[in-house]
Amino acid sequence: MKAIIPFKKTNAKSRLSGILSVEEREKFAMEMLKDVLKVLLEYGIDTTVISTEKLDFDLPGIEKVVDNRNLNECINDLIKKMNTPLFIVMSDIPLIQKRHLEEMVKMDKDVVIAPGRGGGTNVLFLRNPSRFRVDFYGTSFLDHIKIADSRNLSVGIYDSFFLSVDIDEVEDLAELLIHGKRLSSEYIKSVGISLRIREGRVGISRSKSRSCLNHE
Amino acid sequence: MKAIIPFKKTNAKSRLSGILSVEEREKFAMEMLKDVLKVLLEYGIDTTVISTEKLDFDLPGIEKVVDNRNLNECINDLIKKMNTPLFIVMSDIPLIQKRHLEEMVKMDKDVVIAPGRGGGTNVLFLRNPSRFRVDFYGTSFLDHIKIADSRNLSVGIYDSFFLSVDIDEVEDLAELLIHGKRLSSEYIKSVGISLRIREGRVGISRSKSRSCLNHE
Repeated sequence: MKAIIPFKKTNAKSRLSGILSVEEREKFAMEMLKDVLKVLLEYGIDTTVISTEKLDFDLPGIEKVVDNRNLNECINDLIKKMNTPLFIVMSDIPLIQKRHLEEMVKMDKDVVIAPGRGGGTNVLFLRNPSRFRVDFYGTSFLDHIKIADSRNLSVGIYDSFFLSVDIDEVEDLAELLIHGKRLSSEYIKSVGISLRIREGRVGISRSKSRSCLNHE
Repeated sequence: MKAIIPFKKTNAKSRLSGILSVEEREKFAMEMLKDVLKVLLEYGIDTTVISTEKLDFDLPGIEKVVDNRNLNECINDLIKKMNTPLFIVMSDIPLIQKRHLEEMVKMDKDVVIAPGRGGGTNVLFLRNPSRFRVDFYGTSFLDHIKIADSRNLSVGIYDSFFLSVDIDEVEDLAELLIHGKRLSSEYIKSVGISLRIREGRVGISRSKSRSCLNHE
């Protein structure tokens, strides 16, 4: 069993630029990546981080590969001859737990999709990767089902709120503040980000100075 | 076992007013309610819809009660002497499935919470309602955990993407178009709402006339 995590560091998480400076966003993206990697290591799986530039961290058991091609091209090239079961895991889903991976494998399907909001695919499990091709971007959830159907592969939908939470927008940080207990949630708290409740609805605010924002 | 569904018809789903007229929103809210009720009936559970005004539908097995108090006051009054296990189910979670209810009961906890986005509680299961009090609004997910802890009740968090999807904002309609297969998704398609994919991201558009919008 293997896992691939695509990762982008430079100008990471640009939709958070209203609340985090470019340096903070890069740091935050890295903390989320570490949260995800920790779960994969705990599960005991051979993991490769594929990033568009060299990454300056070292974790035992984690391979790093630099690849500048777009996500689909890069992954499809990797999987075309791969016959070991494979997880493709997004790097911005820090609420992932080990049991999610165990349960996805146990579903006993050729392809298992954990949906993200807005038609995304946040975790994809391929029992025989060479029989599949990925199509991230757009409604990848629907596209991945179509691709599996067209290749006579059985499909399971893994229904998890925690896997559906990818952190892209400012409001997504609320999920991390409410449900997170690891590096990435500690990091956003450390820069002064907290929940703000107004008229019964939950928002996000930042108390500490954001002087770094000028660096963007 | 019993279930309560709070429901508001008049000017329902006001945050959808950019895309649906007031009549359409009320109709849509009703279709979502019916989707939820169908699942509760399938599960074979005594269900009461509590609404702020008289509702003009009749479904066998569904009791209707009119109550003008706020949600917490109304539910806490109802449960204070109730010793039968109870589900409290939001009416705007049309992706609910029967297995969700079965699995929540099987968790064997005093209190089981299915979180919504933004700290909400979309389904709450109380094994002994009289020992609990609800606090919807704000971060009810966190509040319900605190209340259970303070009363020495065991808590389970039921991790479901489909239960986390409550339809409040225009962008939430995407989830219904992608994952929905029942009355409420058919209804929004019938008024011309569809997915719009631009630059790899998913949005919502409406093709047909919206003359009714002027009635607001």
